[in-house]
Amino acid sequence: MEKADIGLVGLGVMGSNLALNIAEKGYRVAVYNRTPDRTHEFYEDAGELKDRLIPCDTLEELANNIRAPRPIILMIKAGEPVDNETKALLPFLTHEDIVIDAGNANFHDTVRRLATMGPNDPTFMGMGVSGGEEGARHGPSIMVGGTQEAYDRIAPILNAIAAKYDGQPCVALLGPDGAGHFVKTIHNGIEYADMQMIAEIYGILRDGLGLSAPAIAGVFAKWNDGPLNSYLIEITAKVLNAVDPDTGKAVVDIILDSAGQKGTGRWAAIEAQMLGVPDTAIEAAVAARSLSALKKQRETAAKAYPGEAALSPQDRARFIDDLEQGLYAGKIAAYAQGFAVMAGASREHDWNLPLATIARIWRAGCIIRSQFLDVIADAFEQGNPDNLLLAPAFVERMTKASKPLRNVVSTAALAGLPTPALGAALSYFDSYRQARGTANLIQAQRDFFGAHGFQRLDREGDFHGPWSDVDFQA
Amino acid sequence: MEKADIGLVGLGVMGSNLALNIAEKGYRVAVYNRTPDRTHEFYEDAGELKDRLIPCDTLEELANNIRAPRPIILMIKAGEPVDNETKALLPFLTHEDIVIDAGNANFHDTVRRLATMGPNDPTFMGMGVSGGEEGARHGPSIMVGGTQEAYDRIAPILNAIAAKYDGQPCVALLGPDGAGHFVKTIHNGIEYADMQMIAEIYGILRDGLGLSAPAIAGVFAKWNDGPLNSYLIEITAKVLNAVDPDTGKAVVDIILDSAGQKGTGRWAAIEAQMLGVPDTAIEAAVAARSLSALKKQRETAAKAYPGEAALSPQDRARFIDDLEQGLYAGKIAAYAQGFAVMAGASREHDWNLPLATIARIWRAGCIIRSQFLDVIADAFEQGNPDNLLLAPAFVERMTKASKPLRNVVSTAALAGLPTPALGAALSYFDSYRQARGTANLIQAQRDFFGAHGFQRLDREGDFHGPWSDVDFQA
Repeated sequence: MEKADIGLVGLGVMGSNLALNIAEKGYRVAVYNRTPDRTHEFYEDAGELKDRLIPCDTLEELANNIRAPRPIILMIKAGEPVDNETKALLPFLTHEDIVIDAGNANFHDTVRRLATMGPNDPTFMGMGVSGGEEGARHGPSIMVGGTQEAYDRIAPILNAIAAKYDGQPCVALLGPDGAGHFVKTIHNGIEYADMQMIAEIYGILRDGLGLSAPAIAGVFAKWNDGPLNSYLIEITAKVLNAVDPDTGKAVVDIILDSAGQKGTGRWAAIEAQMLGVPDTAIEAAVAARSLSALKKQRETAAKAYPGEAALSPQDRARFIDDLEQGLYAGKIAAYAQGFAVMAGASREHDWNLPLATIARIWRAGCIIRSQFLDVIADAFEQGNPDNLLLAPAFVERMTKASKPLRNVVSTAALAGLPTPALGAALSYFDSYRQARGTANLIQAQRDFFGAHGFQRLDREGDFHGPWSDVDFQA
Repeated sequence: MEKADIGLVGLGVMGSNLALNIAEKGYRVAVYNRTPDRTHEFYEDAGELKDRLIPCDTLEELANNIRAPRPIILMIKAGEPVDNETKALLPFLTHEDIVIDAGNANFHDTVRRLATMGPNDPTFMGMGVSGGEEGARHGPSIMVGGTQEAYDRIAPILNAIAAKYDGQPCVALLGPDGAGHFVKTIHNGIEYADMQMIAEIYGILRDGLGLSAPAIAGVFAKWNDGPLNSYLIEITAKVLNAVDPDTGKAVVDIILDSAGQKGTGRWAAIEAQMLGVPDTAIEAAVAARSLSALKKQRETAAKAYPGEAALSPQDRARFIDDLEQGLYAGKIAAYAQGFAVMAGASREHDWNLPLATIARIWRAGCIIRSQFLDVIADAFEQGNPDNLLLAPAFVERMTKASKPLRNVVSTAALAGLPTPALGAALSYFDSYRQARGTANLIQAQRDFFGAHGFQRLDREGDFHGPWSDVDFQA
């Protein structure tokens, strides 16, 4: 029997779909699952793709059924399982083989795993895969970290299975070791911010303007034809339109307002903190999910702090236009933060991350896919700006959209409607465009109580204040 | 010669002042510095306190000059130096002795250090000391982690040197191992938020109302007689009143608007993220410091996005009152977050942190000291609320102060004046008091693209949406 081009370990939903995707593109795939029953079930269900699948009951069998040098994808639970399966694979592999972790790994683990490979061990790659089940099956966005040599060997398969935008495959080698998983983490962080800002606008439409779910669906559906056009806006309209067959109510109206999180948004926030790069829109989104879990406390607080949130804008249609533009402005600022975090990581780890390429491979396949990312890619390609907010295309857009964002944040603040991510985005923008900020006061305070010193505007050097001379009358 | 009651390693400003504080209270202190010259310089400068100081040139000499069982305070640079000095001390100590790290340690290190002590080694304590140079010399706030037995042995000295509030010493054993250093980290995070919110109000007064530094000093001085009364408000008025002798300008007006950070604010943000407890006011404050460092980029952005920030409120005096109340509301929400993070850590690490006691020992000595903390202590003592915002005393205050905060955030948003921490505080409050949030939409989206499932309001169980039935017309 002809050997496989590639191996795949882990036949959960994502792994199964990825295996079928690879097989569909004409490659032979040897597959293995910890429980052999699942392997055979998967094989039997594969229909006409069975011919290109080799079910294996052991890792040794898996290795023997792949043509050397072997690429093997792990699509299993992140963390210890990856260490365990990698270790279990080693005896059957040579230094020419490649183990590719395609799970949602913390990039620090990926760096560590590659570093612990010995001279006779295979190389190790970290590969972020976005797009959920559908993406895995029909074309995900793929963010790869590892050596150029290893990447070149698997690139034909990855190009075949990746999503396409204007015919271009949404996959790239982004840097060494953990670079791919790091970028995937930031992707997920941006996804959190994107979803949270949409939820805030939804809240204003629902609680402020009193619109029904189908009416809000109509608003989002219309916006999907404009600059906000994106997968997330599209599915927002779809889910808002869905009706619960049992009750006849809109499905969103019977869903508990507690959102889960799998941790990658949190990782993005922690990495940004470690790098010292502001990432407040993502932090606000993570916080919002945590607060959503405190349903009981929120119910108690609602009784302690009653208050109406109804809005009655003079021109309702115009206010809804402001919501559209405001969401767009918030999105620009949130993406500016996310890309600034990647630029910071690139400097910190000497990764030389190709920011334009990252934007390009996010244009299709992944959850945050949108035409908006095309504008970002062009912005980085044309000018390599220090921050997305400084790119001419975004100066133009943000100049127009920031005023509506001000109106949205201001109106919501007065009405008692929370806009944590949109507010964070606006404050980021306003802080960033402030030539003379207010940190001079903070530095004065720090020098007063801690003798930390300060720099002056008018001369070089480190100075301390004449605080003891202050004649203070309270 | 009579042996010392306690030893102290590290004669920088903080260590020197702490040693003098201890000696002044009648205890004999053996002191050691890595460079003996500094030790003797310190001794010679100690005036009448020389009698109670024993300068030591080696760690062995230090250990020999302390009466067993020996308590030894390390007041040295956090990180590796603490590991090194502890290791160097071990040969001269017994299991009855106590090594007390009084630096700004990451609490994870403190946990690790205690855990690696063998049966014949001394015990290890982590002790957060707040109050800067002046606090160390005349009475800091002291947050201790370790065993009760070890604490009891050093408590008399700590009670003597700590700041006093209404005669009560601002020191307590807060929990085992890293609890003291953790609480100190959150203290510093709250300090960041406090200072940032003050800076935002300062920015509105300066850029929005066009007030001069001395005029703003007058505003803060007046506020210091009201509910905002605190050390930070007091020194804000003082530093704003200071005049640069060279130029005759207000000192704050010649200080570069770039604030430094030593990392503890960042630690607080990271720990909150790890615990999954919202801490957005601290995150906003850390982000603001990071943005303040990007002076060049901000100058470029200011040119790309010109815009006036001038405010012309109908009633100027009333708007300034709103700034006072708004700052108070922001402070309540930020402290609610900080205390919620400590409650989260307490659950996570089984620390049983005494939140009322923490508020009490912060009332004097430390940078965030204020009467406000007395209200917090009472709130936790009287009802153990899930969140400070649910304590009756704060419901009353926040109900009154939240409306002015809305006006401040709203007005600033429209004018282009950044209020990242105040805005985060308001959004936290409004999210927390929302019985029906917007996470139902997020959960619907997550189920749509990732099959994550959702819970329903009207029945138990896990559900998936009928998304495929959605008849979507864009």
